[in-house]
Amino acid sequence: MTTTVDPGHVPDLTGPAPRFRQAGLAFGCDWNPEQWDRATWREDARLMREAGVDLVAVNVFGWSQLEPRPGHYQFDDLDAVMDLMAEAGVRVNLGTGTASTPPWLTTRHPEVLPVAIDGTTRWPGGRQAWCPSSPVYRERSLALVEAVADRYAQHPALALWHVSNELGCHNALCWCDVSARAFRRWLADRYGDVETLNDAWGTSFWSQRYGDFSEVLPPRATVSTRNPGQVLDFHRFGSDELLGQLQAETAVLRARSDVPVTTNFMVTDHIRNLDYWSWAPHVDVVANDHYLDQRLADPTTELAFCADLTRGLAGGEPWLLMEHSTGAVNWQPVNLAKGPGEMVRNSLTHVARGADAVCFFQWRASRQGAEKFHSALVPHAGTDSRQWRDVVDLGATLDRLDEVAGSRVVADVALVFGWEAWWAADGDNRPSTAVHYRAQVLDAYRALRAQGVTVDVVSPADSLEGYRLAVVPSLYLVSDVDAAHLDDFVRRGGTALVTFWSGIADERDAVRLGGYPGAYRDLLGVRVEEFAPVLPGATLTLDDGSHARLWSERSTVLDAQVLARFADGPSAGEAALTRREVGPGRAWYLATSLDEDAWADLAARLCADAGVTTDPDLASAGVERVVRAGQGATWTFYINHGATDVTVPAEGLELVTDTVVADQLLVPARAVRVLREETAR
Amino acid sequence: MTTTVDPGHVPDLTGPAPRFRQAGLAFGCDWNPEQWDRATWREDARLMREAGVDLVAVNVFGWSQLEPRPGHYQFDDLDAVMDLMAEAGVRVNLGTGTASTPPWLTTRHPEVLPVAIDGTTRWPGGRQAWCPSSPVYRERSLALVEAVADRYAQHPALALWHVSNELGCHNALCWCDVSARAFRRWLADRYGDVETLNDAWGTSFWSQRYGDFSEVLPPRATVSTRNPGQVLDFHRFGSDELLGQLQAETAVLRARSDVPVTTNFMVTDHIRNLDYWSWAPHVDVVANDHYLDQRLADPTTELAFCADLTRGLAGGEPWLLMEHSTGAVNWQPVNLAKGPGEMVRNSLTHVARGADAVCFFQWRASRQGAEKFHSALVPHAGTDSRQWRDVVDLGATLDRLDEVAGSRVVADVALVFGWEAWWAADGDNRPSTAVHYRAQVLDAYRALRAQGVTVDVVSPADSLEGYRLAVVPSLYLVSDVDAAHLDDFVRRGGTALVTFWSGIADERDAVRLGGYPGAYRDLLGVRVEEFAPVLPGATLTLDDGSHARLWSERSTVLDAQVLARFADGPSAGEAALTRREVGPGRAWYLATSLDEDAWADLAARLCADAGVTTDPDLASAGVERVVRAGQGATWTFYINHGATDVTVPAEGLELVTDTVVADQLLVPARAVRVLREETAR
Amino acid sequence: MTTTVDPGHVPDLTGPAPRFRQAGLAFGCDWNPEQWDRATWREDARLMREAGVDLVAVNVFGWSQLEPRPGHYQFDDLDAVMDLMAEAGVRVNLGTGTASTPPWLTTRHPEVLPVAIDGTTRWPGGRQAWCPSSPVYRERSLALVEAVADRYAQHPALALWHVSNELGCHNALCWCDVSARAFRRWLADRYGDVETLNDAWGTSFWSQRYGDFSEVLPPRATVSTRNPGQVLDFHRFGSDELLGQLQAETAVLRARSDVPVTTNFMVTDHIRNLDYWSWAPHVDVVANDHYLDQRLADPTTELAFCADLTRGLAGGEPWLLMEHSTGAVNWQPVNLAKGPGEMVRNSLTHVARGADAVCFFQWRASRQGAEKFHSALVPHAGTDSRQWRDVVDLGATLDRLDEVAGSRVVADVALVFGWEAWWAADGDNRPSTAVHYRAQVLDAYRALRAQGVTVDVVSPADSLEGYRLAVVPSLYLVSDVDAAHLDDFVRRGGTALVTFWSGIADERDAVRLGGYPGAYRDLLGVRVEEFAPVLPGATLTLDDGSHARLWSERSTVLDAQVLARFADGPSAGEAALTRREVGPGRAWYLATSLDEDAWADLAARLCADAGVTTDPDLASAGVERVVRAGQGATWTFYINHGATDVTVPAEGLELVTDTVVADQLLVPARAVRVLREETAR
Repeated sequence: MTTTVDPGHVPDLTGPAPRFRQAGLAFGCDWNPEQWDRATWREDARLMREAGVDLVAVNVFGWSQLEPRPGHYQFDDLDAVMDLMAEAGVRVNLGTGTASTPPWLTTRHPEVLPVAIDGTTRWPGGRQAWCPSSPVYRERSLALVEAVADRYAQHPALALWHVSNELGCHNALCWCDVSARAFRRWLADRYGDVETLNDAWGTSFWSQRYGDFSEVLPPRATVSTRNPGQVLDFHRFGSDELLGQLQAETAVLRARSDVPVTTNFMVTDHIRNLDYWSWAPHVDVVANDHYLDQRLADPTTELAFCADLTRGLAGGEPWLLMEHSTGAVNWQPVNLAKGPGEMVRNSLTHVARGADAVCFFQWRASRQGAEKFHSALVPHAGTDSRQWRDVVDLGATLDRLDEVAGSRVVADVALVFGWEAWWAADGDNRPSTAVHYRAQVLDAYRALRAQGVTVDVVSPADSLEGYRLAVVPSLYLVSDVDAAHLDDFVRRGGTALVTFWSGIADERDAVRLGGYPGAYRDLLGVRVEEFAPVLPGATLTLDDGSHARLWSERSTVLDAQVLARFADGPSAGEAALTRREVGPGRAWYLATSLDEDAWADLAARLCADAGVTTDPDLASAGVERVVRAGQGATWTFYINHGATDVTVPAEGLELVTDTVVADQLLVPARAVRVLREETAR
Repeated sequence: MTTTVDPGHVPDLTGPAPRFRQAGLAFGCDWNPEQWDRATWREDARLMREAGVDLVAVNVFGWSQLEPRPGHYQFDDLDAVMDLMAEAGVRVNLGTGTASTPPWLTTRHPEVLPVAIDGTTRWPGGRQAWCPSSPVYRERSLALVEAVADRYAQHPALALWHVSNELGCHNALCWCDVSARAFRRWLADRYGDVETLNDAWGTSFWSQRYGDFSEVLPPRATVSTRNPGQVLDFHRFGSDELLGQLQAETAVLRARSDVPVTTNFMVTDHIRNLDYWSWAPHVDVVANDHYLDQRLADPTTELAFCADLTRGLAGGEPWLLMEHSTGAVNWQPVNLAKGPGEMVRNSLTHVARGADAVCFFQWRASRQGAEKFHSALVPHAGTDSRQWRDVVDLGATLDRLDEVAGSRVVADVALVFGWEAWWAADGDNRPSTAVHYRAQVLDAYRALRAQGVTVDVVSPADSLEGYRLAVVPSLYLVSDVDAAHLDDFVRRGGTALVTFWSGIADERDAVRLGGYPGAYRDLLGVRVEEFAPVLPGATLTLDDGSHARLWSERSTVLDAQVLARFADGPSAGEAALTRREVGPGRAWYLATSLDEDAWADLAARLCADAGVTTDPDLASAGVERVVRAGQGATWTFYINHGATDVTVPAEGLELVTDTVVADQLLVPARAVRVLREETAR
Repeated sequence: MTTTVDPGHVPDLTGPAPRFRQAGLAFGCDWNPEQWDRATWREDARLMREAGVDLVAVNVFGWSQLEPRPGHYQFDDLDAVMDLMAEAGVRVNLGTGTASTPPWLTTRHPEVLPVAIDGTTRWPGGRQAWCPSSPVYRERSLALVEAVADRYAQHPALALWHVSNELGCHNALCWCDVSARAFRRWLADRYGDVETLNDAWGTSFWSQRYGDFSEVLPPRATVSTRNPGQVLDFHRFGSDELLGQLQAETAVLRARSDVPVTTNFMVTDHIRNLDYWSWAPHVDVVANDHYLDQRLADPTTELAFCADLTRGLAGGEPWLLMEHSTGAVNWQPVNLAKGPGEMVRNSLTHVARGADAVCFFQWRASRQGAEKFHSALVPHAGTDSRQWRDVVDLGATLDRLDEVAGSRVVADVALVFGWEAWWAADGDNRPSTAVHYRAQVLDAYRALRAQGVTVDVVSPADSLEGYRLAVVPSLYLVSDVDAAHLDDFVRRGGTALVTFWSGIADERDAVRLGGYPGAYRDLLGVRVEEFAPVLPGATLTLDDGSHARLWSERSTVLDAQVLARFADGPSAGEAALTRREVGPGRAWYLATSLDEDAWADLAARLCADAGVTTDPDLASAGVERVVRAGQGATWTFYINHGATDVTVPAEGLELVTDTVVADQLLVPARAVRVLREETAR
């Protein structure tokens, strides 16, 4: 047997953070060989080569195999797997194996188990059954990371470290006593003294004033509404605790290896407990898991949004799609199969929007366990199947797109998005629980996408430098510093749109007084006195004939042009859409939740006002167009989601079919085409 | 600094209970100065004078400010507040401050925390996180009341004591071990020996027979349906425990002060755990909090009903509207703003129905905390706002209505309502969970209101003396003694309507045998053999063409005239509406849940039968008409809920506009007019 | 007082299990005399004779009466009840009294209380508040059974032992620590060593590998999806633990008595935790409780299915309907009364399908307790009621049908049903949570019933010998051995239909690889590559114009005739219905969930293919026709569910009306007729 460790190598740990490098686009998957026998492993390696798979994540859930008894490590199987991959020329994205604890750990230390908001324990039997603040978990998991890093840091197959897995997917918020102590420490660090905490949380309300940090608890279940400042800080704390685990594992790895480190984010609609803006600087390369969410009205738009947001987290740099699916997932109420070409369209939408790796969960569909009905590269039916043949085709296509790797997406429009705003905006006891932050964001994004516009999704802390148009949907919570970026942007000549329920609260969730939308009131020239939401299902009509839902407001327009007013509803006669010229710039305000058509129309007007090029005809034909630019060339992705062929004027080399295009590019129904055009370097 | 305590004064505590007196209608609000700085306090006092605010509730949630450490009191801020109010001429409704515990109390004594039905603890972070039976809470809260009473009993600003706040809003039922012990004591007091308890609860069913009180527990979560007698007594116990807190605080206050004592009831649709019929005798003046509940089909009818019920609790005397809102609340799923004139209509509906005070939660909208999006007199936008201007107008209007204070509402019709009946009627495993007691009551009330009839809402224990018509909707549980009042009423010449699901059970929730509706069977001359509810959404037709829902019955008519029969459904051919002449009186029975039109028609027939004057045309024009009568004058309130002006024949002085009316009074759309007519003294 | 025990008698306990014998059809009920005074008992005995009641269940919930203090038994009341029944000639079905614990037991031993999945305790106050694995409960309950058996084994009224009551109705699954220990023992017995357990549960997934049985827990609440193998085995364990209680009580009884022993099963839609296939061999006669479930779309079909399944449990022998209702129950959201004739139709449907006893819950409607609004033979209104008169009529009718007792139902068609398949098929994280096993089974059953076909519901372990047609709906989990029965059946000339989501997993819930439906793939000649469920509400069209819902598939037809393809939806063009000839037999496969009409049409085609006689016209006229055959005669039941009279050609003696029929039998609307025809012996 080949030994996989070279104890003589000393990694260079003094320079800048290592970067993940690859020759082209990576194609890969999670591989869980522990579920199969060794004969299957050999077959797997052969099939990986057949499909062109060149990056596999292993050992993601390896703990109970690697450490079957406390402190007793058993690496034989993983050694064999690593050697097999090295031999097969497949690079390994090596899991630290800490994602889920072995049964012996929680049997010996039940205090590791997470506790729900009502004080009841959550038990083993699934995954991630550990409290993020548990010192026992931290100690034992780092010991495992050390063992794994010591063993494989120099293995030739190793290409990337994969810390844990989907950190916080299930256990992001823990209400146990261990977490309570950690929360108090976190608060003491943040606020210094208890009076500052009292001010931040507004504890003079409802007799909540603390005399000492020792009196503070996590926001456990109450008989009435919880303190919103406490809830907000508990979200911050929860995100930070898991970031702490990421950093701790990373430190162990970096002390032993110069291979880059990542973890798979979950930038997606139904995961909201991690503030990835604060996490992104701590990985060497941003990686994301994304699954179509068929519970949403428009899963494909959400996919595009998440890809753009992931690119935002990567600072515009290429990123890795670490997981998506060849077909159905297993965890939605009804798990739809993918239609013809849908897997390719999904994969290449991610690539178009900045991904340099296309990976899947998982290699071979499990026979047992909670995910056995999750699709895979090798389905239960085996390789004599359409799914496998589609996978082989995708591998070949990605090979032909290798030259795209390293290039950057081109966008003129910024959409501001933040997790802290999400936590606060969707809190308890707000004007309308029918208004959801994320849905408002997606409405805005969809309207821009319907204009054929590519959007960068940026942090509230972004300077907005270089954009023509900035859209700020329902950014309920924003700091003064961050709000000032928008002001500067407009005063420098930018065009901005702010929508209702923005700028209301500062970072403590304290309302800005004097009229909404506090942080943006002066910029917009509108002072809102009173919110007047309407019931879900009710329709509002504006005096330009367009329709809206959910929200209206009663305001005074201080200094802006009123472009539309409410024609009916509880705010009839009040301003619904305004525009203010601010030096060379323009500040628009939307006081309601437009329906899809009206939003698209507004997006068109904004783009026109900002000088942003649109292509609504192509978009309405179902074709998504995104451009990546590199040294000396651009690559334009045409993703045809529709059922009819579309022809676009084009000149260059089409990479998917390897065809020279002279003036017209045919994008067949449901297909993707990628046009390379040479540019001056 | 002015000292606020006059230790030389000895209150007269030997006479009758003190009464709350005021020159006219009070106008006020909760004021929480602890959330603001002192500069704001001075501004607040100035604005209160501007708006005519003359009664403010302070220190409602003062505990953690007043007693920041155990036993260490700190009165500086409250002294200043009281002095400021005295100086400003604003009377103070002084909270005992016990509504919510400070964090140190539950940190030191976690056994104070309430426990939910499944045995999980409910934690601090909201409000009212205390077990009503906790001796620790009782002792510490009374110590606070003593300190507050000692300090402010003689303060010139003090007008009223405000015990706790919305007692039982969140913590009315607690399943903890402390509550279990208290429940056993309460049961031993009620039943004396365990065999009497066994009989009362019917424990021969399902092997539940107790050998000793020590075996009894609160009705915690079970794997199957709980014993209904146990559940009913647990409701009684819960109400009594909180009444005990009210009485204990009151005793402390009365030992130190002759200022009247109240607490704010919550007579409203979604609060049902307190039997205010048993509470009302223990306050010096009845006060209520009422908020429009937009989750209901008809919030305005519910408002009127609650005002009438609150007047019933006050025995027909004037009462205080302690809280309502200028605009939206924050705790409903969608919190609707009020429309033009709606705040005034709401306020004056309460006054028309007996309120002598119009108060709001709260003075100044909070910046932080769980209620920051609750409307206020001073909104987040400040005083340059329509809301503030409307508040100032309302203050002026109330000043012009001062003469109404002390007068009594005139009504010929009684509607019987009881909390014990509510608890039992809506219990588990009943014929139809789609039938809700409160909805049945509101249906009857709405039908009478649609006839322009003013209704007194009275207790099942009321003698009904002096009324022409008594309506008893779905009074499932009633004692023999209380049921006899209706019998006497009819035999004395009254007209009564009883509706289905009435008189079924006695006060132990034991079914009366021999045919439903047991307690009223002989009076009505109808013997029901079997209930036949129908599914929600199904429509029943009667043979007079009217429609009904939810319920039908199979009966034998022993001695009554059948006015309508079921034409379809599971009881086709059976009696749906009957009328029996009983000496000079009349006893009607309704065996189903009529739809709105049929109910209105039935109400008209009942009023005609009883000689009650109606005005359905005015009502259907959207105008609510209520008369208050005093010494030498009556005041007729016209509240126009509609969008069109209405003219009524009238002669007298209209107080809102201060206009002499000769023969026609114009009540503009959405407005209120109050006509004073002189009468013989 | 008559002593009821004959200590001189020694039961014969060495022979075969005793059988329950009776002269004709039994008519009876639960009787709870402990809820009434002795005067009422005498009246009850008189009324039982009037109605012809000849079998009553007593002492079902007697524990707290019989053993008011630990170890102190008090039999006076039960002695009197037994003697009264002996005197009245009413046979007693004597409860062991263990169904619900007395309060003193759980007060002294709170560890007896069951614990919910989230770790919270379930408390006394309802019924069945005991952990099935509790050794304390086992010991104390058996002591009671001993005392009852010693006292009454020789009582002349004793006809049947009634162990406990509806075992597992509420407490089938308990997650407490006591259960955890018992679960570990059960697993050690089943698997021997922990590696076998690891393989069975697939613990290499998500780092769940156990090092020792001591690490295993029940599948308590987790933050993510639980291990499906663990959940499945926990279902098996829960069923076995309660079966253990049945066996333990039975052993006590058999050691003391040769009277047959039963317990009342709950073969019904909403109870699924007991695998009655494994229970049935352990009772001397199968008994069932069945209540119409008005929450279902078609409660009457479900009644017929349950009767057929109960007969299947009895191996085709007569069985006892131990409980049903004269009218409404009390535990559904809306508890519908029965319509004219419905009670008789329900009762005789059970008799038609093999019941030799028609019993009810309960004799006299309770005044108190959780079931006081459950209908009874003597309603709250008393005996001057239609319900009582109907009961008396039913008693007389049953007397006229006595000769039916002992005969067997005739059926050519088998429908395969299993509880293990139910548990696994409806588990978490499956392709579609909108597909429910039981609903799929009922769809198939309804289609056959609509052809007028009588069906035997059989176990997956049944050989299918003697049937012409076998239907296997969505039998997700099946062992290889059981699957082979269907193969043999077809190869011997039978006709089989398998529907989608069948044969997927083996008994460990491990997916069979190589293509679905694994266990039946070769037999059917179809290899499914991918599931493609559709959302509830969506309609699928097949190319024969029929419609379907919920499910489609993408497959390769290896060796079968395609009878219909999907015309639209995610599997357009794929096979929806296939038929393969296998030697003399035929194997059909249905790849979707047909709507009602299409299912009926398919059933007709299957019956034709299998040579099964149908009578769809009679069925569509609303008449259910079932034949019981005995020595020398057959009895054909005609149950007219419709509102019009139906005439059928017939010759024989009609028993309900005691009328000789020459050539035409009139079955009036809503009525039942039973025709005896002589046959050769």
